[in-house]
Amino acid sequence: MQLTINTIGVIESPYQQKFGIARQPGLVNAAKVWLVLDKTFTEESVRGLADFDYVWVHFVFHEAIKEGWSPLVRPPRLGGKQKMGVFATRSPHRPNHLGLSLLKLEAVKIDKGVRLLLSGADLLDGTPIIDIKPYIPFVEAKPEAKSGFVQGRPPQLNIVWSAQALMLLADEDLDFEFKELVSQSVAQDPRPAYQEDELRVYGMLLAGVNVSFQIKGDVATIVSLVRTA
Amino acid sequence: MQLTINTIGVIESPYQQKFGIARQPGLVNAAKVWLVLDKTFTEESVRGLADFDYVWVHFVFHEAIKEGWSPLVRPPRLGGKQKMGVFATRSPHRPNHLGLSLLKLEAVKIDKGVRLLLSGADLLDGTPIIDIKPYIPFVEAKPEAKSGFVQGRPPQLNIVWSAQALMLLADEDLDFEFKELVSQSVAQDPRPAYQEDELRVYGMLLAGVNVSFQIKGDVATIVSLVRTA
Repeated sequence: MQLTINTIGVIESPYQQKFGIARQPGLVNAAKVWLVLDKTFTEESVRGLADFDYVWVHFVFHEAIKEGWSPLVRPPRLGGKQKMGVFATRSPHRPNHLGLSLLKLEAVKIDKGVRLLLSGADLLDGTPIIDIKPYIPFVEAKPEAKSGFVQGRPPQLNIVWSAQALMLLADEDLDFEFKELVSQSVAQDPRPAYQEDELRVYGMLLAGVNVSFQIKGDVATIVSLVRTA
Repeated sequence: MQLTINTIGVIESPYQQKFGIARQPGLVNAAKVWLVLDKTFTEESVRGLADFDYVWVHFVFHEAIKEGWSPLVRPPRLGGKQKMGVFATRSPHRPNHLGLSLLKLEAVKIDKGVRLLLSGADLLDGTPIIDIKPYIPFVEAKPEAKSGFVQGRPPQLNIVWSAQALMLLADEDLDFEFKELVSQSVAQDPRPAYQEDELRVYGMLLAGVNVSFQIKGDVATIVSLVRTA
């Protein structure tokens, strides 16, 4: 059976590439995105929503569509060593490529249209949105639930800023919020599983800035920043 | 932007009508359903899933599609007196008619195909499924989250079985599990908001049995049971 879904809005995010996006929502608090609703949806459609702390965002992993899906995937959490059934993971390479993120609702803004400011986001710029729902803790908070191979928060890297990177941050007028976004994002260790080349310089495009970093052991060093045209 | 979604499976549920289905998952533990995956999805696709206590079931409110959607809805929780924005509710009358339920995973069964036994269900028989995801408590359990007009578990009715209904239960060889399903479902008070006619007999089709009940104050009486052909 086939269904036709219409997107209801789109995400404006500092994450302009898949590389570097947190693998779960809530890990990078500094990652703020705007969910811009289509003009069809007026202020009425979000009446009462601002009284909720969290919202479910239903989205489409649009960049994964062309990559298809597999019955078995290798969760980064397992170091890429073990295969799990796609329905036992949150992998983007799933049938229908549907994503679900619990994001903190920071603000509901009504001006020319309706926009939601959401933090803790793990969403790529341009992500199509297909639904928004309020979070209902008495039904959806199960802190004691057994969760297979996903055991708590993954370990974070320690972050060091090079003198050069700090200088460029000042030169480019990049604020503390941006610095936090870089630190928190890199702390998640965005490297693909099994890559442990200390000399390799990784690049990550964040809010129009190319951020370079290196990782040695559990320390990541922010090497440089370059604004893109 | 439009997307095409393929269903991945279907629900086999004792709930054969919308009337009487719990308004949130987890309220009626006795409501067990089978999620039957399409043949495309083999054992591999659910490898590791049995190690999770809860799963997210993405579904379509298929019976609500023809009824359309409204920007404002009247949540039963507010006695039908107040309107809320559709995105601040879990109403089926929403754009795209997408549903999301957190259900307890009781068993993963592999025989001719793949089936999941799920409890606490609020799903109609025949509900089309579009995704299954594992529940990740470290990201998704937020017991302290503020949740607007949805304040905890709604009050339950007390259940009384009439002598006649108990007799019919025995006559029809209906087991304790079925009795629990009736009791827990009716305890949710399925009446539409504002209906408080003590003499009215309500009927609810559960697993091929027509269940009649009356409600007076906070007591619901199970009046009769009739097996349908």
